[in-house]
Amino acid sequence: MQPFELSLTEASRAIEARELSPLELTESVLARIDAVDGRLGAYVTVTAEAALSAAAHAEREIAATGPRSPLHGIPMGLKDLIDVAGLPTTASSRVRARHVAARDSHVAARLRAAGAVLLGKTHTHEFAYGLTTPQTRNAWDQDRVAGGSSGGSAVAVAAGAATFALGTDTGGSVRVPAALNGVVGLKPTYGLVPRSGVTSLSWSLDHVGPLTRTARDAALVLAATAGHDPRDPASVPAPPPDPTVGGDLSGLRVGVPRNHYFDRVSSEVEDAVRRAVERLAELGARLVDVEIPMARHVQAIQWGLMVPEASAYHERSLRTTPDLYTPEVRVLLEAGELTSAGDYLRAQRARTMMRDAWARMFDGIDVLAAPTVPMTAATSGQDTVEWADGTVETVSDSYVRLSAPADITGVPALTLPVGHDRAGLPIGMQLMARAFQDATVLRVGQVYEEASVDVGRVRRGRSGERLEATNSH
Amino acid sequence: MQPFELSLTEASRAIEARELSPLELTESVLARIDAVDGRLGAYVTVTAEAALSAAAHAEREIAATGPRSPLHGIPMGLKDLIDVAGLPTTASSRVRARHVAARDSHVAARLRAAGAVLLGKTHTHEFAYGLTTPQTRNAWDQDRVAGGSSGGSAVAVAAGAATFALGTDTGGSVRVPAALNGVVGLKPTYGLVPRSGVTSLSWSLDHVGPLTRTARDAALVLAATAGHDPRDPASVPAPPPDPTVGGDLSGLRVGVPRNHYFDRVSSEVEDAVRRAVERLAELGARLVDVEIPMARHVQAIQWGLMVPEASAYHERSLRTTPDLYTPEVRVLLEAGELTSAGDYLRAQRARTMMRDAWARMFDGIDVLAAPTVPMTAATSGQDTVEWADGTVETVSDSYVRLSAPADITGVPALTLPVGHDRAGLPIGMQLMARAFQDATVLRVGQVYEEASVDVGRVRRGRSGERLEATNSH
Repeated sequence: MQPFELSLTEASRAIEARELSPLELTESVLARIDAVDGRLGAYVTVTAEAALSAAAHAEREIAATGPRSPLHGIPMGLKDLIDVAGLPTTASSRVRARHVAARDSHVAARLRAAGAVLLGKTHTHEFAYGLTTPQTRNAWDQDRVAGGSSGGSAVAVAAGAATFALGTDTGGSVRVPAALNGVVGLKPTYGLVPRSGVTSLSWSLDHVGPLTRTARDAALVLAATAGHDPRDPASVPAPPPDPTVGGDLSGLRVGVPRNHYFDRVSSEVEDAVRRAVERLAELGARLVDVEIPMARHVQAIQWGLMVPEASAYHERSLRTTPDLYTPEVRVLLEAGELTSAGDYLRAQRARTMMRDAWARMFDGIDVLAAPTVPMTAATSGQDTVEWADGTVETVSDSYVRLSAPADITGVPALTLPVGHDRAGLPIGMQLMARAFQDATVLRVGQVYEEASVDVGRVRRGRSGERLEATNSH
Repeated sequence: MQPFELSLTEASRAIEARELSPLELTESVLARIDAVDGRLGAYVTVTAEAALSAAAHAEREIAATGPRSPLHGIPMGLKDLIDVAGLPTTASSRVRARHVAARDSHVAARLRAAGAVLLGKTHTHEFAYGLTTPQTRNAWDQDRVAGGSSGGSAVAVAAGAATFALGTDTGGSVRVPAALNGVVGLKPTYGLVPRSGVTSLSWSLDHVGPLTRTARDAALVLAATAGHDPRDPASVPAPPPDPTVGGDLSGLRVGVPRNHYFDRVSSEVEDAVRRAVERLAELGARLVDVEIPMARHVQAIQWGLMVPEASAYHERSLRTTPDLYTPEVRVLLEAGELTSAGDYLRAQRARTMMRDAWARMFDGIDVLAAPTVPMTAATSGQDTVEWADGTVETVSDSYVRLSAPADITGVPALTLPVGHDRAGLPIGMQLMARAFQDATVLRVGQVYEEASVDVGRVRRGRSGERLEATNSH
């Protein structure tokens, strides 16, 4: 196994044991980027020289006084909405062509302080306003979409082109690409990870979260990035979740949705997720049927909040440089300007009702388990999908449908790989819990992945295999 | 001194010492209501029978096991936006003519549990959407406005027709009538006192708070009503502020505004407040000149948030029973329906900026001292006021101008009487502090009022004198 294939936890242990040096790891990942990124398009910018210099610095510091944190010397990618002092934050848009960040975002500063090594900035859908990340290709099949809007981050982690990455999630933009590329993605509780210095799509729905190879890795990144920052008005001074784990799942009540989450879902996805849920039961969990409240309002609430908030954020540049936006994003931003305050407030009030109803739902369960997306990665250029019941839906609508509820309600949601379809494409299951119970979804995810050695091996093995194939196309 | 003249603290001590019985106190206050309320119009409904029965019950319980709390056996009025199980909540509107509350609001339940005795429901401007409370007359001069929208509560407390009362404050509606009637009013930190079961005017600005005769009284009512309630989405689980006090003000930094709060203020109000600020300095405080940030945006933010939120709340009844609203309120609600989401979100973002700028201002001071309203009670029917600089302003705009900033930023604001104008009408000073520092403004208010025995006596004496005069007109 080459260093670029190691999980964050494995790499961290090897560095601490002096079996692996940060420079060796970073060189391996940079070589991997060279080998695959021309085809995958995960990165906007690779800062190889700075990465090597930071890795060499980490190496000297660790040799002298040991690692500062489990992230010390670990190479990472940051979605290009996240400010890093001195680097452009393009948001993958021409509007931002000349924008250079003056200071680090909260998360970049925290990761820098933890000793992580920045490899570069990863691609997103323009201003994160979409679910495909068109510049990037799926790590498992170049003819498939990467998913978005944190597509670059997901593909980099899946392809060994970053040991971990950060993305943002407004309607599912961490979890959708994580699921489609067979990696782990966490959307933390709203307000837990500060968003100061991160370009906004829709501030009442925006979250920053990790993309990693394992749930244990995600817990390490969350611990390093959570914390209060008064520059983000939504930031709460909640204690960072406990990254420790262990044990089986005895007594854990796992909710299995009766509605919404298994409607209009491909049979292969449904089967894989139901098998994974059965695995949780074998590990000691008690399965509880639950009714998802207000499910038919999800789309109206999501769009009702996002469209006007996005337009308000872009108000000035939409007036000064409208032609620099892609037509697809511009039309959405212009639509937002036509929304009435009454429509927006109706969405806001419905969101409050939904959040309360979800809190009551979690009185009866500890975790909700469901598919992350209703189907695996679509072919690039595929616009719509037809379901068994005859309904036709856009690919984007289908990808956001199961992930948006956790953004609206603010609850933590972790996606992890639970199998593959017949085409070999990965399938994701998401675990959700009550707000600020991020530690619970991470613990359940870790117990699941550690008990499923075969799944882990297969996934990692196949990923390697696929990637070699990709590489030699 | 008759029982109805006692402050809450005095009455509470007398009840605990068995020198006064709850029934005796309640009978005295009810007799006072009989004597004065026909002229003052503070109450929508007086529930005399229920009050006497509750007082008798409190008397037996206190005789047997002592008082439950400092509020046990104390008679109070509740603004008629606050639900009490089994009673109508009219919001002083024909729209609510047939509305009877099924359950207690959070605050009514908390006060009931503390043993307070409900006297009845007090008048407000229709749905609290105004600053005059037209049904009610000023306790000091029947030809003057009571101020609003908690005018009934303020007048009841000022006239001895309630030992304390609750009001609500969206743009100043606790503090404006408190100042105009010479009583103490507290707008607590946003989110500290739950608003579940309280009719909303503008949910991102609404607060519930006490009207009392002293700051010490206000601290007792706040302690009884603060606390987390998940039914109010804005409620925060902050610890209730410590009601204890004492000491001088050594080391306390009192901010004196250079701008906004002394602009377009009558010279008598300015003089009285500056004398009170000097009194704080004599008590040990250090005075610090401060610049109020974003002051010129106050009105736009206040209206930009309130108008669409009020319309959204009334959406259904505005469609079904528009003719039951007064024309004045209906036109405001209809205007709100024409607001765009962009305008609303601009106000929301400006509010966030203002809140942050105020938080930075409080890095340099512990308390901000300022006039509560720029002039004493206007004559009923007076629409506008002309200032020394030649500008003309509506009476309502002038009353909201100095109180709205604390609603927008959410910081605690306490008004207390600091003198009278030449016509004998009371003048109020407000003390503000950083969010959740409610205990600080209450402590400073108590030190001020306890050190100003003369002011206290004069106020109470003159109030009595005025009221007898009112009584014998």
